[in-house]
Parts: sequence; C-alpha cells; structure tokens
Amino acid sequence: MSEHDQDQPATEEPDAASGDAASGEDCLFCRIVSGELSADLVHQDDDVVAFRDIQPKAPTHVLVVPRRHVRDWSDTARHAPELGPALLRGVADVADALGLEHYRVVANTGEKAGQSVFHLHLHVLGGRPMLWPPG
Amino acid sequence: MSEHDQDQPATEEPDAASGDAASGEDCLFCRIVSGELSADLVHQDDDVVAFRDIQPKAPTHVLVVPRRHVRDWSDTARHAPELGPALLRGVADVADALGLEHYRVVANTGEKAGQSVFHLHLHVLGGRPMLWPPG
Repeated sequence: MSEHDQDQPATEEPDAASGDAASGEDCLFCRIVSGELSADLVHQDDDVVAFRDIQPKAPTHVLVVPRRHVRDWSDTARHAPELGPALLRGVADVADALGLEHYRVVANTGEKAGQSVFHLHLHVLGGRPMLWPPG
Repeated sequence: MSEHDQDQPATEEPDAASGDAASGEDCLFCRIVSGELSADLVHQDDDVVAFRDIQPKAPTHVLVVPRRHVRDWSDTARHAPELGPALLRGVADVADALGLEHYRVVANTGEKAGQSVFHLHLHVLGGRPMLWPPG
C-alpha cells in the first residue's frame, strides 16, 4: 500500500478516492452523506455524519464528516470556518455515544499527510492506548 | 517513556504536566500563553498561540493552543464550541506561515490517547510523509 493510500475510504469505491474529487456524485463522502452509499453510521445531526472506517486502526475508528463538502482542514478554515463548532461537537458526540473517554482525533491534509478522500474527515480513534509519534 | 508521556510538553516543566491542572499558574500552556514561560512562537492572534513542540516528531511540529483554558476536545465542544473557527484558522495560518501544503493535525483527549498537558492543543505535523496508522 503506498503512502497515498494510508487513509482508506470508508467503503470500497475505487474511483472516488482518486484525488481531487469535487462535491456531489464524484465525492465518496458526499454520497455517504446523501445516503446514496451505505456506511455503518454511528451518529448524525444537521451538520455532520459519523460512520465507522472500513479499515479500522483501533477498536473504535470512526470518521466524522461535515455534510457540506469541504476539501480539507485549510479549505474549511478559509471557506467554512463556521463549521468549527459542529465539528467539535460531532466528535464529542461520537465519543459520548461510544463511551470513549480517551481518544485521538486525526485530520490529514494532502496526500503526503495520508489524505485519500478529499472531503474533510476527522478520524476518531480509541479503545486502545495510542502510540507516539502519531504516524 | 511511558504511554502517559508520549505527548510531551513544549517546555521542561515537570510539575505542570502532572494531570488535571486547572487554568492559570498550574497550567503549562496558560503560562506560555501569558508570556510567563518562553516558547518558540510561530503564530499568534487574539484567540490562539502556536509554538514549536520541544520534542518534534516531524521536521515541522507545532502546537496550536487556544488562549482560553479548556481541558481537551470534549471540554471545548461542551463549554467553548465558539472556539471552533479560531482553531480551524489557527492551524491553517500556521500551515501557511510555514509553507506546509501537506500536514496532519492530531489532538489527544485523555492519558491513554497520549495527552499529558491538560490544556487543549492541536499538533500540526508536516515536512515528511506521515505514516498510517497514526500511532
């Protein structure tokens, strides 16, 4: 597996993780948000959807994604900073729902950081001690 | 190094990383925010301060902390969600200032996740390919 594929999509969808997907039908996570693709949902509200990663790296490994399509952390900061509170709460709601007191949040921006789906997603990992360095 | 010490404080301050520090003089990062302790600052604005980790795990390894004392991700989500936009922007500003196009953001909640300073801080790592799993 190349470094570009470290951060696996949540469902098997070879074409959707090919890089610079726009919103809508070309974006894997937009299709999960819309319900077109199924996923193992653990939480949703007006702003975010959370579902289990299909290649979990911890006993609990969930992705929290905004319903609105934003590419990555910097894109969100520049064009949709108002999503910040909902992202904070979405992760905390997942932790509460799954009984996680100790958890790591990871967000990859760019291929060299491990991003493969270009719709912002926050990894929430827990259920085991997390190691350092973080990848 | 025990798992509790994975996430090192930004300066040598043995008493400040002992767990459940409140805000103010007992909190290492509050003391950096106030200027009482020095750090290698790379960015600051009205809401956040960013400085280099003293035990970097990548060529670039910066901590972004809110000036306001909040314990961790869940505490922020519950009691200060309005910090969300500033945290998004603070990280993006650091990435811009340091020329990082590819970077990983990591936030540890709780000792078993690697948190050792109980003032929310977002690790920003870049300058090398990041591996998977993230710790």
